[in-house]
Amino acid sequence: MKLATVEYGSAEHTTLVLDDGERLLLLAKAHHLVTGEHAPVLATMQDIIDGGAQAQDALARIAEASPAEAVIDSSEVRWLAPLPRPVQIRDFGCFMDHFRNARARIQGIPVDQVELPAVQLERPLYYVANRLSVTGHGTDVHWPRYSTLRDYELEFACVLGRGGIDIAVADAESHIFGYTIFNDFSARDTQLEEIATGLGLSKSKDFADSNVLGPWIVTADEIDDPYRLRMTARINGEEVSRGSSAEMHHTFADMIAFASTSTRLHAGEVLCSGTVPTGCGFEHGRFLESGDIVELEVTGLGVLRNRVVA
Amino acid sequence: MKLATVEYGSAEHTTLVLDDGERLLLLAKAHHLVTGEHAPVLATMQDIIDGGAQAQDALARIAEASPAEAVIDSSEVRWLAPLPRPVQIRDFGCFMDHFRNARARIQGIPVDQVELPAVQLERPLYYVANRLSVTGHGTDVHWPRYSTLRDYELEFACVLGRGGIDIAVADAESHIFGYTIFNDFSARDTQLEEIATGLGLSKSKDFADSNVLGPWIVTADEIDDPYRLRMTARINGEEVSRGSSAEMHHTFADMIAFASTSTRLHAGEVLCSGTVPTGCGFEHGRFLESGDIVELEVTGLGVLRNRVVA
Repeated sequence: MKLATVEYGSAEHTTLVLDDGERLLLLAKAHHLVTGEHAPVLATMQDIIDGGAQAQDALARIAEASPAEAVIDSSEVRWLAPLPRPVQIRDFGCFMDHFRNARARIQGIPVDQVELPAVQLERPLYYVANRLSVTGHGTDVHWPRYSTLRDYELEFACVLGRGGIDIAVADAESHIFGYTIFNDFSARDTQLEEIATGLGLSKSKDFADSNVLGPWIVTADEIDDPYRLRMTARINGEEVSRGSSAEMHHTFADMIAFASTSTRLHAGEVLCSGTVPTGCGFEHGRFLESGDIVELEVTGLGVLRNRVVA
Repeated sequence: MKLATVEYGSAEHTTLVLDDGERLLLLAKAHHLVTGEHAPVLATMQDIIDGGAQAQDALARIAEASPAEAVIDSSEVRWLAPLPRPVQIRDFGCFMDHFRNARARIQGIPVDQVELPAVQLERPLYYVANRLSVTGHGTDVHWPRYSTLRDYELEFACVLGRGGIDIAVADAESHIFGYTIFNDFSARDTQLEEIATGLGLSKSKDFADSNVLGPWIVTADEIDDPYRLRMTARINGEEVSRGSSAEMHHTFADMIAFASTSTRLHAGEVLCSGTVPTGCGFEHGRFLESGDIVELEVTGLGVLRNRVVA
């Protein structure tokens, strides 16, 4: 099942994605048509996640009926992030070859001579991102004036369906509600200045619309193997990145187990994979110009498209 | 005006702090006694902040009346963070001598030989903290098993009353609703491993109850000069840290202006000062043992007390 949040008729709606995104079923309207009742459990994506089995039952019932009066054309909507205000976002570093490529560039040495800190191989380190600078598919991302080295990052993310503390790796996948694509737009010049301090990432990752999620959430049952997904990026239609989730050194289960150690995670939290190798301009040398259209595609998760405006 | 959030009779209440915290006025009950009406605008601290002038008027009216039937003894409550789930928390590095002291320890050189990266002096760099691991005055903080170098950090924070984007330094103070104390408990051994990667701070700053705010918010009008506050810390009653907010190299206005550059800030966001010089064990060598009671005191803001349990 694919679930999206959109703006339609100047209101926010949860929808079921039909025909690879060409049409959408408005959940609230469909539920009312099918049952004659309102469905608070389907009101927002967070409500659907929190609603558990009750929400899934309601979804299954209206998906089967799919009343034509509740179906709209997606050309009529503005896509929002599937979770427009996630309760929290952590972005992890799971693909080691991304870091090897980046360090080779910074240090000016061949990739095979790069030695990563052991702690990166041992643990899926992360930072907490600004959950309030989230946007969706189709939004123009206005680049901040303080940066001219404009970059995208090709990632995907899981959304938690259930929270927990000290979640075991073996149990962690059962906590995943679904997956979505993540573009972690990065002011790379600013980032190089910030990482030198060891204090973390400030304005390099924190500007309006810098965190793009979407176009929708694909529920976990639809993804046979999240570690066999082809990940590609295109700039103005030209392929610039190609990788696979098979290259993840740390899995989503590892991320959930690590982050939940002595910390409670909550339903609706978003955990991002980090950049797939070759998945950003810093690795291949092609940065973004004003007007560039960036498309991220992940097998089964759709295409996330945004234009950069500088 | 001092405003606290507490648990009383197994429900969450907003309160006005009387007599330096010995007694509390339950806002919802007091409003009902005074006006005969309910007051959704006083229901939570976020509601009070969002409520602007309307909330302030309601507060002034019931503060003046202070009906005795709505006054309780604070020994009967469990203190929560004044904002139990802040919409966001950023922790900045504003006190340069804290970083000089820390680098001197790490590098084994005299403090006056430490050179900080220029970017730290130019900008109030920050990281985003886990807003869901927040707790309040009086809570026992259970230390994670993965760390044995247990540390506190003596900080204070402003809470935004109004949001905005590209806020000018000259306008920034008018966005502040009030101030509170912040203890940024830190797993220092873990932090030393994490900062070496340049990827930011993961589990060193992210464990249950690691972010302590409180005991209450003092509204901005009560603080004549936020840059003349004495900041002290005690472990089991013995003073271990002493500094002043006068030592801030970057001000709260700088922090707000910097963070809001090309990013919208929102009412209720918490912006923390970073550690005052001498304000953590890593600087003076006294780390925390199980059972230690840490008290942070800031002039006019009260005393924030927590016990560490390992």
